[in-house]
Amino acid sequence: MELRQIYAPVQQDLNKVQDTLKSISHIDFAWLSEQLSYVVKEIGKGIRPALTLLSGKSYKYNLTYLLPMAVSVELMHTATLVHDDAIDKALTRRGQATINSIWGDEIAILMGDYLFAKAGESVSDTQTPRVIKLFSQTLATISSGEIGQFRGAFNLDQNRENYFHRIYSKTASLFSLSTQSGAILSKAPEELVTVMKEYGDNLGIAFQIVDDILDITSTKEAMGKPVGSDLTQGTLTLPAMLLMERYPDDNPVERLFETGDKSNVAQAIDMVLNSTIIDECYKTASEYCKRACKNLNLLPDTVSRQSLYALADYVVKQGI
Amino acid sequence: MELRQIYAPVQQDLNKVQDTLKSISHIDFAWLSEQLSYVVKEIGKGIRPALTLLSGKSYKYNLTYLLPMAVSVELMHTATLVHDDAIDKALTRRGQATINSIWGDEIAILMGDYLFAKAGESVSDTQTPRVIKLFSQTLATISSGEIGQFRGAFNLDQNRENYFHRIYSKTASLFSLSTQSGAILSKAPEELVTVMKEYGDNLGIAFQIVDDILDITSTKEAMGKPVGSDLTQGTLTLPAMLLMERYPDDNPVERLFETGDKSNVAQAIDMVLNSTIIDECYKTASEYCKRACKNLNLLPDTVSRQSLYALADYVVKQGI
Repeated sequence: MELRQIYAPVQQDLNKVQDTLKSISHIDFAWLSEQLSYVVKEIGKGIRPALTLLSGKSYKYNLTYLLPMAVSVELMHTATLVHDDAIDKALTRRGQATINSIWGDEIAILMGDYLFAKAGESVSDTQTPRVIKLFSQTLATISSGEIGQFRGAFNLDQNRENYFHRIYSKTASLFSLSTQSGAILSKAPEELVTVMKEYGDNLGIAFQIVDDILDITSTKEAMGKPVGSDLTQGTLTLPAMLLMERYPDDNPVERLFETGDKSNVAQAIDMVLNSTIIDECYKTASEYCKRACKNLNLLPDTVSRQSLYALADYVVKQGI
Repeated sequence: MELRQIYAPVQQDLNKVQDTLKSISHIDFAWLSEQLSYVVKEIGKGIRPALTLLSGKSYKYNLTYLLPMAVSVELMHTATLVHDDAIDKALTRRGQATINSIWGDEIAILMGDYLFAKAGESVSDTQTPRVIKLFSQTLATISSGEIGQFRGAFNLDQNRENYFHRIYSKTASLFSLSTQSGAILSKAPEELVTVMKEYGDNLGIAFQIVDDILDITSTKEAMGKPVGSDLTQGTLTLPAMLLMERYPDDNPVERLFETGDKSNVAQAIDMVLNSTIIDECYKTASEYCKRACKNLNLLPDTVSRQSLYALADYVVKQGI
């Protein structure tokens, strides 16, 4: 199923999310206004706000609160990307030049802070201290996860537990906030809030595994950033871990991490592509998607529940 | 009056603020825990949390809400300093090595984000959407103000309106949040909330003017950072503006901004010190302190009101 079809039950409201995001650039500071419209002009796939709205459909859908929540998760996502790009010294994102590459790291830091602030303003419009607290806890989880990733760069002494903890922190926690807040704001019973939290946790992990796969199997054109970025930055992903397990002696990932010689990146990618590693990674992602869907049958049988099933299917089939 | 005496009506609760700040480092991530305890070990003068607590005393003092609010304003202040130091490439702050100088800009960015998140968690414990929204709006004001300052660095085409707007954004807005939220959380009538907002606005402007004075008149030892930092970074402060007005032809500030030749910094400082400029700047700061105090007589006559008067007096006499 296409994303357009999956989003159908909430497409009109997703358009409102996009309009609200664009309105953030309407401020009385011409230079900043122009840069903000550059940052928020494209919502990307909008998977996080879509998750909030679709999760909200599971009970008493109330757009007054769900709209600012959906806006806030997308803004938090955008803010973290702006800071991540500055940290990674990334030149392009979604095929566009990054903020840091155009205006420097200083503006990227402050622009990210501004976007966090706008995300905070938006989440406060939900008037719901519980989701506001979850929002801040999620930002703490994401930033401590990023600190862990940065500190662990080019470190070979990492196991799968480290990997899953890291991708939970940097990606799944925000998916989880998106789904959980949707349920809370539509006054779902606690049992359904838990279901939606677990759906978000598992979908987010699957999403990040697939993202880590695509960093190896995709093209620069399709991703809008260079292939092999994770390895280049010393981030140990699942495909790279599997490669090290298969070839314990004389492995290009080990050589890359130990010597910093970037020529090993291409060799590592070649070796992964000429193995069954990618299939195995998709299998792992698929298991997380199954876990995500496992409890969805506790939700009322609506078109939005169908969308949540379909989204799990979509996430794991990207790039296949 | 000494700061210790001024803070007396809330000193016990300020100690609780300090304890809560320290508890932020009690997390299950050894490396981050250690760094956080470095960041939050010293509260500095604690003027912002003191303002929240003293303002709370103006009506129905409720520590359950005022404590997390006081913690959140101090954390937001700390987070902005961590990012500012990374942007300014500052090496020391309060006589200590900065985060960026020890662990690099990447960790400074993420540590600042983590502190913003903890500030957000804390403010959500006030359970009061109005102050939560004010908190986020203040962060937006601060970061857009910092963007303006960074963009305007080494730009001679700035007038006093630009200067006052800039120092309102970067400093007074957080003073204003501190006082206003104290009044709101103690259920003060709207009239008193406005009084406390105006007190915070004016006191914050006075505080920043004095800070800009001390950057010229103080010593590296007293400030814990180099003298003349503002000029070195191309920030046009009130003393520098007055110097340019006095010596419109061949001025060291103009030469510094136009050529980048840092030898002009010492000459500019000498010229300011050998003039009446510092007195004039103190006079301006003093006027803002008078404005701050003007409406305090609408508050109930308590020891905390005496402290607010005394604090205004203290702010403007620093360094004299």
